[in-house]
Order: sequence, then C-alpha cells, then structure tokens
Amino acid sequence: MKQTQTLIGFHAVSSALKGASADIEWLRVLANSNNKRLREIESRASGAGIKIIKSSPAELDQLAGQQRHQGVVAGFRGSNLATEGQLDTILDNIDGTPLILLLDGVQDPHNLGACLRTAEAAGVHLVIICKDRSAGITPVVRRAASGAAETMPIIQATNLARMMRELKQRGVWLAGTSETATDELYATDLTGPLALVMGSEGSGLRRLTAEICDYLVSIPMAGQVESLNVSVATGVCLYEINRQRSTKA
Amino acid sequence: MKQTQTLIGFHAVSSALKGASADIEWLRVLANSNNKRLREIESRASGAGIKIIKSSPAELDQLAGQQRHQGVVAGFRGSNLATEGQLDTILDNIDGTPLILLLDGVQDPHNLGACLRTAEAAGVHLVIICKDRSAGITPVVRRAASGAAETMPIIQATNLARMMRELKQRGVWLAGTSETATDELYATDLTGPLALVMGSEGSGLRRLTAEICDYLVSIPMAGQVESLNVSVATGVCLYEINRQRSTKA
Repeated sequence: MKQTQTLIGFHAVSSALKGASADIEWLRVLANSNNKRLREIESRASGAGIKIIKSSPAELDQLAGQQRHQGVVAGFRGSNLATEGQLDTILDNIDGTPLILLLDGVQDPHNLGACLRTAEAAGVHLVIICKDRSAGITPVVRRAASGAAETMPIIQATNLARMMRELKQRGVWLAGTSETATDELYATDLTGPLALVMGSEGSGLRRLTAEICDYLVSIPMAGQVESLNVSVATGVCLYEINRQRSTKA
Repeated sequence: MKQTQTLIGFHAVSSALKGASADIEWLRVLANSNNKRLREIESRASGAGIKIIKSSPAELDQLAGQQRHQGVVAGFRGSNLATEGQLDTILDNIDGTPLILLLDGVQDPHNLGACLRTAEAAGVHLVIICKDRSAGITPVVRRAASGAAETMPIIQATNLARMMRELKQRGVWLAGTSETATDELYATDLTGPLALVMGSEGSGLRRLTAEICDYLVSIPMAGQVESLNVSVATGVCLYEINRQRSTKA
C-alpha cells in the first residue's frame, strides 16, 4: 500500500485537485477563514467527494512542519510514482513524440521541485530520477513542484544506466547537457524522440552517464558565471526542444 | 563609503575573483586543507594582491551564518551596485543591442540570486530591481547568484515606473511576461533593444507595471501547472531573445 504524503499550500493542493483528485484522501483547511482561494479549493474538493476537516492554525502548522501552508494541507497517495518495471507501459501510452527528463542526482529539494514543475509545464511525458543520489519526493519537493509531483509519471530508478539503455532500445535518443560539450543546444536537432539528461548541481553528469548519452550539448554562457541553476538549465533546454518541434511540425 | 559584504562559498568567491577582484578586500580560507579548489582560489587571490587570512572551521562558520561556506569566505565592496542616476551612463556604455532585465518584486533570495546568475549567463547588460518590494542583495542572494551579484551592473530602484519610462525614452522596448497574455513568447519579435520585465513569485506583474510595458508575452504551458518558477521563466525568455538575435544576425 502506498504511504500517505502531505501536500502543503495553495499551488500543490490546487494542482492535485485538478490533475489527480482521486489520489487525495483528505483535505484540511483553516476554519473560519474568508480567503477566496481557500473557499474555492474547499468547494472543488467537496465536489470531488474528498473528506474535508476544518482545522486550527496550530494543527496546520504541525502538519506543514517548516513549510508555509497558506491555510491548506492535503493527504495524498501518489499513483503517479512508478517503478522501473513500468517503463515499457509508460512509453507505450505516450501520445506524440516522446519527451523524457532524466535527472542524474539533483540533490536540493527546491531544485528538484522546480525541475518537476518545469517538466510538467513543458509537456514532459516522464521524469526519471536517480533514487540513491537524488532528493526523494518529499513535502518540500512537492511544494516547490506546484502540483507536478502529483500529476506526472515519475520513476525513481535504482539503476539509471540500465534505464538509459532501455530507452535507447526503444528508439529514444539520449541528449546530455555539459558545460564542456562542443555542440551547442541551438545548433542541435532535438526534434526526434528524446530524453534530456541533466547532471547534479555541483558536478554535472557522472562520467558513466555522459558516456551512455548519444550526444552532449552545451548552453551558451555569455559572462563570468560558469553554469546555470539546474532547474533554469532544464527549462531552457526543454523549451528549446518544444520550439524546434513546433517549428518543424 | 560602500559597506563590506560577505561572499560565501567556491562559486561566489571564484567568480568575483575573475570578474571583480579589485573589489575583494580580504579572503578567509580554511587552514591546513588540501582541497584543490581552495588552494587554487588562494593562489589566484594571492596573485591579485588580496589579503589572505587562514581560518578555523569555527571562524568560517560564524562569518557564513546558515550558509555552506565550503572553506572560503571573502569581504567585498561592490562597485557594480548603481543608483538610478547612473542609468544614462550605463546605457551609453552598452556595446551592442541592449538587453536589460527588470524584476518587479522577486522576494525569495534564492530566486533573486538565480535570476541574477541567469541574467549574467545570458549576457544581460543591466538588472533593475525594485528596492521596496524585492529581496536585497544579501549574502544568500550573492551565493545563489554564483558571482553575478558582484560583476554585473544592478540598480536598486525606488521608482520602477519612472525607470521604465526613462528606458522607453532611450528607445528600449519593454516586454512584460504574463500568464494571461495572448501573444506567445515564440511568436514575438524580440530582436530590438529590449528590457524583459518579470513579476513577483506570487502575483506576477503589478497592474501599473504591466500597463507601462509596450507588450506582454506568455510562456506556453502544456500541463496542469499554472506558472514556472520566476528564475526558470527568466531563463526561458532571455535565451529565446538571444536565439532570435543570433538567428537574425
């Protein structure tokens, strides 16, 4: 049985209500509040048949820990979290040209959340994260992901290299990003079935991960700064892939 | 006299050494460490004639507060922080087509830092932030900015609307971003002299700010998530501006 996770704040709860309301077990909202957004969330939850518990600020604070809850917290059992064995089924169900994001060890939960949020906004079909070297899907990640952690398929892989080889066998190209790559993002054709592979905050792609990639691309850097924040780099790459695809279509 | 600020960690110190070493007053490094990056920073600082103080972990911890210092902290007097009155001079000195970033109230210091880092990497000539409604240029911001907060011109404006009107008079177009804009980023010509205007994390652009903009553009959103993190959105927009410019050139 999947463990219940806590969703905290407007964005996370509101997005789960839109995309995955069947996975919400209960909703706790601040009692006696006239906040319009809170009442709206409450009415949508009520319409979806979700159990609603009016709560005191102290009760919400306790559930939210250090996070800002904005008067709303929900219990969630994610059916979007998949196992490695489900890769084939997920690929079979993709409508259109596959766009996959692989994160090779993003460790900061805010960064991981922002990567998921960006991936969902860019229409990514599946995110694969490295189980051992990555932040888990914690409440902090869920909050930063603004709902993406509840709605998009995510595989927490124990063996990223094997997953990459399986993707290759299914005809998906692996494009890694590296500061030292000679091919620039904008000079590379990214319109085919593609998995974008991003490294960790400190050290980028591991050697083995980079070797399995079909090619490596770099993001042009105009100044002194050596790299972008990983979620910003993810956004720049994913949106360029989409731009190329829509121009070609 | 400018107040001394603290730069914390490899990235911040290393970038300031590259781009603004004359503004570094002193460098504190962990004594008795064999770390290669630390020794490299120390030797570059020594070459630039900067006063180096060997320090204990406890001394560094105290200077860094809650931030991870990685064994290095520096004292910095930023000559890149400019006043509103210097706008004309900064514009006069721009080589090429102006690219300016205006942040209308980014409040989270990590977001502000990531926006500065992204701007510097994208070759932005000037960042203007709203003094009253924005995070200040604090050590946390500097750390997240990875050196950009020390090297690129930044104006902390008390009256953002007036600055926007001055930019217009100088022939700079103002492009605001808004989730509700009907014109898409990718369908808009962004090759002229341009200031990109980004809103705050929670509520986007203020009404007055949006009204002064020459036009508003939206970033396409494919999923349930309603918006991108502000630093990710900034990266997506700035890199698309650069792509259009280099395609046209």
